[in-house]
Amino acid sequence: MAAEPVRIDDPADPRIAGFVSIRERDLTGREGLFIAEGTVVLRMLGAAPARDNGFVADAFLLLENRLAGIADVLATFPLTVPVYVASAAVFDAVAGFNMHRGVLALGRKPASERGETLLEGLPETSLVLVGCGLSNHDNVGSIFRNAAAFGADAVFLDGMSCDPLYRKAIRVSVGSVLTVPFSRGLDAHAMLQRLAEAGFDIWGLSPRGEVTVGEIPAARRIALVLGTEGEGLPETILSSFRTARIPQRPGLDSLNVATASGIALYQIALAMGRVG
Amino acid sequence: MAAEPVRIDDPADPRIAGFVSIRERDLTGREGLFIAEGTVVLRMLGAAPARDNGFVADAFLLLENRLAGIADVLATFPLTVPVYVASAAVFDAVAGFNMHRGVLALGRKPASERGETLLEGLPETSLVLVGCGLSNHDNVGSIFRNAAAFGADAVFLDGMSCDPLYRKAIRVSVGSVLTVPFSRGLDAHAMLQRLAEAGFDIWGLSPRGEVTVGEIPAARRIALVLGTEGEGLPETILSSFRTARIPQRPGLDSLNVATASGIALYQIALAMGRVG
Repeated sequence: MAAEPVRIDDPADPRIAGFVSIRERDLTGREGLFIAEGTVVLRMLGAAPARDNGFVADAFLLLENRLAGIADVLATFPLTVPVYVASAAVFDAVAGFNMHRGVLALGRKPASERGETLLEGLPETSLVLVGCGLSNHDNVGSIFRNAAAFGADAVFLDGMSCDPLYRKAIRVSVGSVLTVPFSRGLDAHAMLQRLAEAGFDIWGLSPRGEVTVGEIPAARRIALVLGTEGEGLPETILSSFRTARIPQRPGLDSLNVATASGIALYQIALAMGRVG
Repeated sequence: MAAEPVRIDDPADPRIAGFVSIRERDLTGREGLFIAEGTVVLRMLGAAPARDNGFVADAFLLLENRLAGIADVLATFPLTVPVYVASAAVFDAVAGFNMHRGVLALGRKPASERGETLLEGLPETSLVLVGCGLSNHDNVGSIFRNAAAFGADAVFLDGMSCDPLYRKAIRVSVGSVLTVPFSRGLDAHAMLQRLAEAGFDIWGLSPRGEVTVGEIPAARRIALVLGTEGEGLPETILSSFRTARIPQRPGLDSLNVATASGIALYQIALAMGRVG
């Protein structure tokens, strides 16, 4: 049972102010809030309380013709979350561009950063990803999708990485940003140091890695560290930890960082017996 | 030595008509022509004649302040290819949106489709990709990038797949569309039949595959077949050929098709001893 839908006829209606011009605004970041798009992502947001990860929905904005099709998903949210519906003209005027999907939620993230708690709460046997300077939303979204596919326990992003709660990153992750625990904002070196102290084998992924990803030995706890596509990981990280490469043809361009993360996670998850 | 730059002051100048509104127009397809963006991609276009793959440049349009930085790349093209330069205002008015890169070439593809010739010309030991219904430009671009990274000899796309020469696909492929031989437009079943007759082991990639990608045995010739992300490969293909899966966590969503192609190609290239 979801809340009774409320029809919105004025794009300037203050009740839907949170959805205005989301394409431009999501690039500037809004503290604590995010936009979730599409049925699959909303389903994951609805399942968030069961995961106890602190994500909640503040409101929905739907194209009127999408209401019936999404009723079962809305029913997973508390009755107190308002459901606004609008015509295509009003909906597009609010969003600022043509939204084919017509299904939006305004979400709210947990008040406190969970970096420290996240690390402390990791299981005895853990596989985590660490991102340094991952500034591309598509790549960050894809990396979360891969993390979910291969059962990573957490993702740690440094302060130079973009917020995975950007609309596009959530969409590309197919909602995995809402299911794979993450923290963002810690300093990369401090983060790796803490992980090493917590018993993690740290492996930096680099085209100049000393071993291939297939040679990474199984371990109780493994952290895979990813850098930006162009520059790669900083020398200070490459020289402080072990490094692995993905065997590939010599050439100017290495793999896309998201694809590379998928291949490395696949190999590590196999080695740890997490998939089979 | 490139052609002497010609300054363009009028966005409606007929000499640069091929560059007008490229964002909208590239979605409709223009027979024989394509837009190549950015220095890395232009470098690959310049190297095309050496690859004897039939791609040529018809013209360049550059932001005036990019000219000096790209002189060495322009020098790899014939003197007969005109080089147009424009101010940011004129450049954006032509392209129809803000082009940060400011480096464009209008390319021309070979007059004849090379499907049959491509198959006949493949080396004794070959690894090829076959795409069925790959309609997303980003995914097709990423798949070509992976094909290049793992040394695939060719990509065969069916008629339901999008043209890899769309601007965005070329860009995402980091120019690999211009270096990995491909054909597009053949019927998927006929194509697979021809590949099987030519001695290829055909492997369909599917979440319900009978073996894991790591279990695909080495062979002289292997064809990896990819379907769309949502629907996957059609039953008629899955039931006619062997299938392989990527081990992953159970869940609603499988991997992105481009990432999946990267993982499968990585495993097959390893098995065939093509990378190491």
